[in-house]
This record gives sequence, structure tokens and C-alpha cells, in this order.
Amino acid sequence: MREGAIKPEDSQPEMPRRRFLNSAAIAGLAGVGLAACSDKPASAPAAKASAPASHGNPGEDGGSVHLKPGELDTYYGLWSGGHTGDMRVLGLPSGREITRIPCFVPDALVGWGITNESRQVMGTNPDGSLKYTVADTHHTHASYKDGNYDGRYAWINDKINSRLARIRLDYFVCDKITELPNVQGFHGIFPDKRDPVDPAINYTTRVFCGAEFQIPLVPGNAELEKADKYRSLFTCVDAESMEVRWQVLIDGNCDLTATSYDGKLAATNQYNVENGVKYEDMMSAERDACLFFNVARIEAAVKAGKFKTIGSSKVPVVDGTREANKDPATALTAYVSVPKNPHGVNASPDGKYFICAGKLSPTCTVIELAKVLAWFDGKLEKIDQAIVAEVEVGLGPLHTAFDGRGNAYTTLFLDSALVKWNVEAAIKFHAGDKNARYVVDRLDLQYQPGHVNASQSETVAADGKWLAVGCKFSKDRFLPAGPLHPENEQLIDISGEKMVLVADHPVRGEPHDFIIFKRELLKPKQVYSLDEFPNAVKDPKESGVVRNGRKVTVKMTSLAPAFSLREFKVKKGDEVTLILTNLDKVQDLTHGFAIPKYNVNFIVNPQETKSVTFIADKPGVFWAYCTHFCHALHLEMRSRMIVEA
Amino acid sequence: MREGAIKPEDSQPEMPRRRFLNSAAIAGLAGVGLAACSDKPASAPAAKASAPASHGNPGEDGGSVHLKPGELDTYYGLWSGGHTGDMRVLGLPSGREITRIPCFVPDALVGWGITNESRQVMGTNPDGSLKYTVADTHHTHASYKDGNYDGRYAWINDKINSRLARIRLDYFVCDKITELPNVQGFHGIFPDKRDPVDPAINYTTRVFCGAEFQIPLVPGNAELEKADKYRSLFTCVDAESMEVRWQVLIDGNCDLTATSYDGKLAATNQYNVENGVKYEDMMSAERDACLFFNVARIEAAVKAGKFKTIGSSKVPVVDGTREANKDPATALTAYVSVPKNPHGVNASPDGKYFICAGKLSPTCTVIELAKVLAWFDGKLEKIDQAIVAEVEVGLGPLHTAFDGRGNAYTTLFLDSALVKWNVEAAIKFHAGDKNARYVVDRLDLQYQPGHVNASQSETVAADGKWLAVGCKFSKDRFLPAGPLHPENEQLIDISGEKMVLVADHPVRGEPHDFIIFKRELLKPKQVYSLDEFPNAVKDPKESGVVRNGRKVTVKMTSLAPAFSLREFKVKKGDEVTLILTNLDKVQDLTHGFAIPKYNVNFIVNPQETKSVTFIADKPGVFWAYCTHFCHALHLEMRSRMIVEA
Repeated sequence: MREGAIKPEDSQPEMPRRRFLNSAAIAGLAGVGLAACSDKPASAPAAKASAPASHGNPGEDGGSVHLKPGELDTYYGLWSGGHTGDMRVLGLPSGREITRIPCFVPDALVGWGITNESRQVMGTNPDGSLKYTVADTHHTHASYKDGNYDGRYAWINDKINSRLARIRLDYFVCDKITELPNVQGFHGIFPDKRDPVDPAINYTTRVFCGAEFQIPLVPGNAELEKADKYRSLFTCVDAESMEVRWQVLIDGNCDLTATSYDGKLAATNQYNVENGVKYEDMMSAERDACLFFNVARIEAAVKAGKFKTIGSSKVPVVDGTREANKDPATALTAYVSVPKNPHGVNASPDGKYFICAGKLSPTCTVIELAKVLAWFDGKLEKIDQAIVAEVEVGLGPLHTAFDGRGNAYTTLFLDSALVKWNVEAAIKFHAGDKNARYVVDRLDLQYQPGHVNASQSETVAADGKWLAVGCKFSKDRFLPAGPLHPENEQLIDISGEKMVLVADHPVRGEPHDFIIFKRELLKPKQVYSLDEFPNAVKDPKESGVVRNGRKVTVKMTSLAPAFSLREFKVKKGDEVTLILTNLDKVQDLTHGFAIPKYNVNFIVNPQETKSVTFIADKPGVFWAYCTHFCHALHLEMRSRMIVEA
Repeated sequence: MREGAIKPEDSQPEMPRRRFLNSAAIAGLAGVGLAACSDKPASAPAAKASAPASHGNPGEDGGSVHLKPGELDTYYGLWSGGHTGDMRVLGLPSGREITRIPCFVPDALVGWGITNESRQVMGTNPDGSLKYTVADTHHTHASYKDGNYDGRYAWINDKINSRLARIRLDYFVCDKITELPNVQGFHGIFPDKRDPVDPAINYTTRVFCGAEFQIPLVPGNAELEKADKYRSLFTCVDAESMEVRWQVLIDGNCDLTATSYDGKLAATNQYNVENGVKYEDMMSAERDACLFFNVARIEAAVKAGKFKTIGSSKVPVVDGTREANKDPATALTAYVSVPKNPHGVNASPDGKYFICAGKLSPTCTVIELAKVLAWFDGKLEKIDQAIVAEVEVGLGPLHTAFDGRGNAYTTLFLDSALVKWNVEAAIKFHAGDKNARYVVDRLDLQYQPGHVNASQSETVAADGKWLAVGCKFSKDRFLPAGPLHPENEQLIDISGEKMVLVADHPVRGEPHDFIIFKRELLKPKQVYSLDEFPNAVKDPKESGVVRNGRKVTVKMTSLAPAFSLREFKVKKGDEVTLILTNLDKVQDLTHGFAIPKYNVNFIVNPQETKSVTFIADKPGVFWAYCTHFCHALHLEMRSRMIVEA
């Protein structure tokens, strides 16, 4: 454990000098000296702490972390793909990446951004080019039923372009992308877990989205520099239609997002209530906020017409500012104060609490949801009375996971550690019981941990077996491979009293958040049905070239090891739409289709149909070929495109 | 072991019915029934075969396959990235992916295809758009010195667009891409290992490239359908300049490529000597060829002006057709016949042999290089006398690796197995010694293996410790994740007499080939020098906005947690070039830079400089932000771009 880290035995109760990082400490933070990644490797005795042998039977409950060849994982992980703009699907506890689902950024294997079908999902400019080709995905969450994942959908956000993507968890494909209006830097997302009013709707129907950057909402050069007038909005997207239902104009900004198990509350933490434009301004206030949204009241207000719209957007926007929501009887929002520049906000699996991690404060703040609702009901005098604990846990707390046994696990970015603490003990301690020892265990991590999640942690079925941490720096943990190091996703066995580090996994930047759940919650489909595709070429006999002026349609099927058209002819300048149906029915008998020099490559899975459109602008012979190994005669599987000059 | 597979005890000597797949068998191959991936899972008792416990100490020499947290791998792996168009860098024996190096396809993390520097490497159209955005990488090999890797360069091919990329192995970046002229479907590559003439050049100076698809070399509509006139070329690229040195016009096509340790010979296997355009035609001949190139003679011919050029290309093309090379005294090429539709051709680490795998023939053909040279010297009557063995190994042999102890390991695609066989024993058997038992061991694989390589296998330092196999189908080996299954890279301990399967790794399609070598052969650099970038902004004081008409240059530096310009202002319609230098010096203290709605995202590593150019076509406030976690105040690290209408 490095110098300055809190040791379990001294973490409480007397640490007044560390209660909050004071101004001097914050000034230091901003300098290079305390930058996240220091030159010297941490001196943590990780080997000892991480030796599985010291723990008896690590992974005993969830199976060994080291699977034998042919053994299947027991958990799925859905990981944000970072700047690759996709969702990564992992098997756990092995940590193996099973697939990546393209969403926001083109993918040259699948043909995402190349096929007409994917381009429609992604969105195009009037000239036909893709609207966006970069992304920065952060958070991924899945749809709920009765407080557990129901295997229908997952969602993921793109912070750069304020987009929300939905993934169908039957076929593991992205089927809808929504760009949020009126906001910038959309960061946190969370689906609701049931309807706040209708008890029959015991499943996800909304996704909440927090916008991080405040921007001018009024057009015109005069508004561009009036930073004090910049605003941020909180957005509700319909889980089925993926249309934006409503937005809330707020004070301050949105960072992470959480939702209650009863469907009544959503919340976002705010690190910039100051509306600052430079980082020094953004951390000038001693306390920021965790901002609660009363979902039922907001929707009643929208229904009653109590909203405005912004610019050309038709989305109803209600007023969630502090000034407009002082009266609990009518308030749509409630600002609970928390120490400066908080980061994660996470819902405990017992449904009782939201926990805000302090980031620049060494504390976690526990907010009791029943008390927040009591305030809305006029039964709590001050909203900050909903804070039932605010306890020190270590330096740089960022995110919190749960084991379903009353313990929370919070990453400590500056300490490079994970702290296990007991929520009820922390509440007792905060209430005055100085003998309540809430810190249960600490574990050094490698290095600078950010997101954390445990198996089933964000459900009522939290099972406290495995925990993963996304460490932002790996430093010396993997073979060097140039200036860009991988990040280090660490797997920890939390089935016992003591935490045990069991594996390091390098990952490409920058996954951020993820969820881990039991494999039996998903029932993926492996083969499509031809009927799902209106343009399917159901019989090889339908294959051929149909000309309509300069527009040419080429219909084709595949059946290993041949395409139904061994050749086809078009003329230079034709607009060619090629439709390919894979008639193979065997699981995973996927074919690829590439045309040299024409920027065409995509795959068709069994019984799937895809299409591409291109201008045949180069005369010659072009051997379209199967790019996805399918058969002993795969290399020989080609179709000859002849473009006449 | 499944029905129909060869058992070691019956693999020789009497198997006349299996000597070659006859016409009936081939017809069956083409049907769905014998497609690569059949519906029923293989009944291989993999669990038993793969239990490490049965082997004593698997991985004893190379360390355990299961590294403890913090333990480093002992080998690097450079893997083709398949359709992602990048090179994957793995650590072995853990199989962990450490990084991916973008080459042919844009990468939204690095900003590959977005920064001006990367766009120059990739190549652009006259309108500024990227020339290509898809790729199909197959083979990766590294530069040699004295028969072992020297850590300078690696190369990787793109089959779709006939491109060769070079990777600098100091910074793990792609620095040059060459598009080969006059060819299509460029597939196999291999660097030479020394100069054929100058003994002082004991390192790689050439990269050989085989073009798979035959195409018309003469323009005009009349030529488009004359398939019998289509031709393929073999290409030599200069390893330093990356310019094409010369090409050889050949009969038939090129598939994989190999080079001799003495620098004198390069070769390519040919599966389509028939010039067929449909797969039935491509496999009509009973024997195809392994085509040898006499490098010194070809270069002498080029020097003597004995070449032509094709179309607008200035590359010298010599005549390597059968007709022009009948006389050994002057021949540039030699066609050694091998059984129909061969696939891999691999050089044994003792420097003596090239081994061709039969694919549609259950055989491997061993060609002795000294005898090929003897033919060129007029000392061998018929070139086919260079064949010193042609032995049965199993169904669907594709590629071969070596352990440096005289054994070869050949993947059997149709048998889903790996066969270990002794080369000298095979030669004895072929010479008539029917007691020579060349098959040493067989191991079932999961499933349909393609490429294979062993640690240091393609060097004089082959060490026979680890072997990896790229299985084309994983079927039931991983959790289901929709219709597209991962492929299965299997790791095998070959340090003992018996092979032991130790791990399954799912990978995204489709890696194809790879190399594995000792970590001490690489000395990567972790921090750039500012002087490597002519446009570096070396001091924050140089930051600012410089206008030249509608062209605006924005110079900026980064130092955690701030950009030197907290804001900058441009006008709608400006062409903005933004230059960003990262002044942080700490290893891995990388920053990202994204501009919402402007398709800008890239990273700058410590002391690196990058630039982007875009038209400021949207007025408003755009929060450029750091997209690569760098510091506790990373979220607050922004620069405000104000675009005035």
C-alpha cells in the first residue's frame, strides 16, 4: 500500500485533516506532480495481495477463473467499447471477448456503415455520407423486468455526438440510434426499472440520459460567450420507439445517472453546479449536487402542457431549475447537496439508497430514497435530510458496486485501490455510533481504477461473486507495445470476506462502464429467418441483374462454396444495388462479400439478407470474393463483376 | 476422434483409397453436406485430450499459460487483424491482446483516418476522402537479421485492395502503405531473410507479395471476358522505401508465399494453374504447382533491361511464364508440381525445405531447396525431382509450423485436427523405407483449423514451446452471442512428445496468420521526442489562432488536466487546421481530443504531435474535450470552440 493511502485500521473515525481535500490539495491535484499517472510504479505488494492461494478457494462459488478448453463461462459481460463505438460482449470469469457489436462507428468486418441497412440505423448526410464516424461510448445498461435483466435490450451512449444506441439482445445487433436534441456531451444513461404509476408495467419503458456540457440554448453570436446562460438538460427516451419523450431544463450539469427500483426516481450527479467553463471554476464550490427527478410529476406536467420547446425541436421541455422547484408539493426536481465534484451515483440492490462517490472529496454520500420521496410528499423539512451517511472511504472515490450482502465496493482513483464498506454500518457511524466500523477490506489495484461492477450488482439479484474494475492505467502490467498502453480490467473474487485479485486483462481504450449477469438470462438466436428481411432473395432462381435506366439491381444468394451468380455485368456509371441472401442454414456458416477497389465488404449470417449500393465508376474485372472462411473451397468462392467501359 | 479421421496407427503406409481425394469426394466437398461447419458438434473427446494434468507440466519451459496478476508474458504475438484492417499485438502464453495497430481501416480511438498524418499514410481521393475504408488482412511477418527477427518492422497485407502496410516496431505504428499495381486479390507475403548476392546484407531488404486473382492486363471491353488471357503477377517491394521494385508475370495464380534462409529463393503455391473462373474449373487439374523465383536472376534481368511495363505503371515486369523459362540456364522461375489446390507453403527452420500442404489432397509435399537450386544450375534433370517427400498426413492439410527439433505440425481443416510429423522420417518413407513412421502425434482441434504457427517457428531459433492454431469455427466453445460466432484461437503446448491443448481464445474474424517470438527481440519506445514532429508546438506560449484568409491554424498543447487554449474562436466557413502537441512526458499519459458534431477524435501520446483539418460549417459552442482518461480532473479537461455565424 502506497504512502498516503488509508489503511483499514486508520480509516475511521478520526481523520479531520482528510475530511475534504482543501484548496491547497486541489491546487496540487491540478499540477503534473499529482497527475493520474506518476512516473514511479506503485510500490504496492500486489503479488502478495493477489495470490489466489492466500484466499482458500477463489472463485469457488462461480467456478474457476481459469476455464479449461471447452468450458463455458457462467456470466455474460456487456462492456462499453470506448472509442471503437461498439459494445463488447465478454464471457466471465474468463474475461474472454466473445464478440463486438458495432453501433456508432463503421465496422469493416460486419459491413456496418457499408450496408444500406446499417447506414439507415447510423444516419447519413444529404449527400449520402455517414453523418458521424467517431464515437466515445461510456455506459451500457440493459432492460429490466421485476428488478432483474430480462434479455430484451441493452443501451449504450456516444458522448461526442450525444447519441443513444439500442442493441437487440436476441441477435446482438444495434437496431436504433437516437441523437438527443438541445444537448452536448451526453454522458450517463440508465433505463428505468418499472413504471412509477402503472404497476402492470414492471419492466423498462424509459431510458434516462444526462447531458454533461452546458451550451447556449438560444441561437445568435451574442449568446455564444454568455457562459452563465449556458444550460444542460436531462432527457427521457422511450425504450421501444427510441423517440425522445421529454427533457428537463436544469441548473448545473449532468454526469452519471441512476434509477430507483420502484420507478419513481431518476437522478444524476452534478460536478459543475457553478456553470464554470474552466476546470478551476468547475471546482470552486464546496458542494455540488445529486439531482433527483420525480418521473410521475414530470410526465403529468408534460401531459398538462406545462412545457416549452427549444428551437426546431418538438420535444417537450419542463422546467427543472432550482428556482422553479422550491415547493415540494409541486417540485419536479430536488437538488440534494453532495461534496464537490462528485462522480458515480449508484443504486443499492435493496432498493433503499443512491450512493454518490466524492471524487474530489474522500467520501461517499448515502441518500435514502424513501426520504427523498418524503420530501416530495411534504414530510421532510429539508431535502438534505435525505443524506443518511457521508463517510470517508479513501482518496478519489469514483464508482460503487454491491454484493447483495449489504456491502458496497468503491473505486479509489487516487489511492489506486478498492474499498469494501458496509452501508448500514456507515449509516450508524454517520448517526453518531463511532464504534461502527464500516470499512471491511481494502485491495490495491493496478492502477487508477474508474468504473467498477459486480456480478448482478445493479439488480435485485446481486450475487456477490465476481467484481471487475476498469483501471485507467496499466503501466507495467503487460508487455510494452509502444506509447499507447492498454488499460487494465482486473477481475476480483468477492465471494469471501477478503477480496482477492485473480486476473489482469489488457483492453483497448476506453471501456468505461459495463454490466455482468448470469448467462441464463439471455437466450440469443443463432440463425435468422428469411422472412425477417423484406428484400430477401429466397431462391437462387431469383438471382439476376435487373436494369432500370442507370439503376441496376443485382440479386444473389450464397450457399457454400458458391455465390448463385458466378459473374454479373454492369456498365460504367451505373448505380448498382446488390442484394445478397445467405441461404446456408448451419449455425455460424457466415459468408463475406468484398469487391476490390469498391470499398465494399460485409458479412451475411445464415439466412440473413444485406444490401449495398455503389456507383460502378471503374471499368474492368473485379473478383468479388467470400471474405469469411466458410468451406475448404472458400478461397475459390468468388463472383466476377465485369464493369464495361 | 471423429469418424473418417486418420488414426496415427493407420495413417501409413497402406491407404490407397485415401491417396488423393477422387472426383466423387471433391463433388461431395462442394455440397452442403460436407461444408466446413456441419450441424452436429464434433464428437471429439476434447476434455480428455486437453486436460493439462495428463501431460505432466504443460508449459513448463515457457511458464504457465495462466499468468498470475502482474506476471508478464514471455512471447509477443503479432496477429493479422482480419477485416478490422489492423495488426493485433498479443502476449503469449496468456493470449491477451495488448494493443491493435490501425493500418488499412480508420480507427476512432487513435484518430487513424482522421488526423492529417494518418490520412497521408492511408491515401486519399482528389476530393479529400479516404481512398479505402475496408480491408481484409491475412498475413503478417517481421523483418529478419541472420535468420531471426530483428525488431525493426512488420508487414501486413490487405487482400481486398492489394495493399501492403509496414509497421514500425519501435512505436508500434503503421508508417507506410503501398498499393500494388497490375494485380488483384494480393494474398501471401513474406520478407526475404538476406540478400541472394551480397553477404553483407544479412537482413531483410525485400518483401514478396503473391497476387491471387487473375485479371485482364490489357484495357478495353473486348478483353473483359477473355478469362484465358487473365494473368497474375508476383511482386517484390523494397523493405525500406516501400516502393515496388519489380514484378513477375506468371502462369497460374499466387496464394501463400515463402522465402529461403539463404535469400536465393522465394516461392508461392498455386491453386489455380487452370486459370479457372469458377471453382469447379479451378480444381479440374490433378496437380497444381509450387512456383519458385530465382531472385538474383530476376534482378539481373531487370538491371539488363529485360522487362516490360503494364499500362501507366512504371514497375519493371519480367516474364516468368512456363513457356519463357524452360531452359534452366536462363530460367527466372521454376514450377514444381504439387497435388491439386495446395494451400500453405512454409520454410523449415533448418533452411532445407519448403513444405506445401495439399488442401484437396491429404498430403504434404516436401521440396528440397538445394535441389531446386541444382535445377537452376543445370545439375538436376527435372524440377519435380526436387520433391523429396509427398506423404499422407490427413484430410485438408492447410499450413505447417515447426519445432526446431525436426518435426512439422500441419493443420487438417477437414479432420479438425493437428498432425505432428517428422520431416526426415517422411523423406525416408517416401524414399521407400516403409518402416519409417513419420506421424508422431495427432490432436483434435475445435474446429476446422486454418493457420498455425509455433514460437519462433519461422526463424532459425524455432524453440518448440508453444503453438497457436486459428480455428475457423468455434461452434459450441463459447457462450452464444448471436449469429456471428467468434473464431477459436487455440494454444497448444508442444514442448513434450505429445501435444497438449491448454487454452481456447475467442477472436473476432478473421485473423488468419500470425507470428510468435521471444519478448527480448523487441525494444519498444514508450515516449516520443518532440523533434520527431516538424509541426510540434513545443511551448504552450506558441499556442494561439493564426488566420490566413479563410484558413485558420489553431496551435495548442496539452498538460494534464488542461489544454493550453481553454477556448478558441473561428468563423463559420473557415478551414481550420488544429495542431495539438502533448507536452506530458510520463509514459502512457495520453490525451484524447474530440469535437462534438465535427467528426474529430484522436489521441496524442506523450510528446507526440497530431493535426486535423476541418471546415467549421456549424455555428455554436462546441466543447472539445479530452477523451482518454488522464487525471482526476479528466472530465473537466476541455477547450471551448466558438464558431461565430
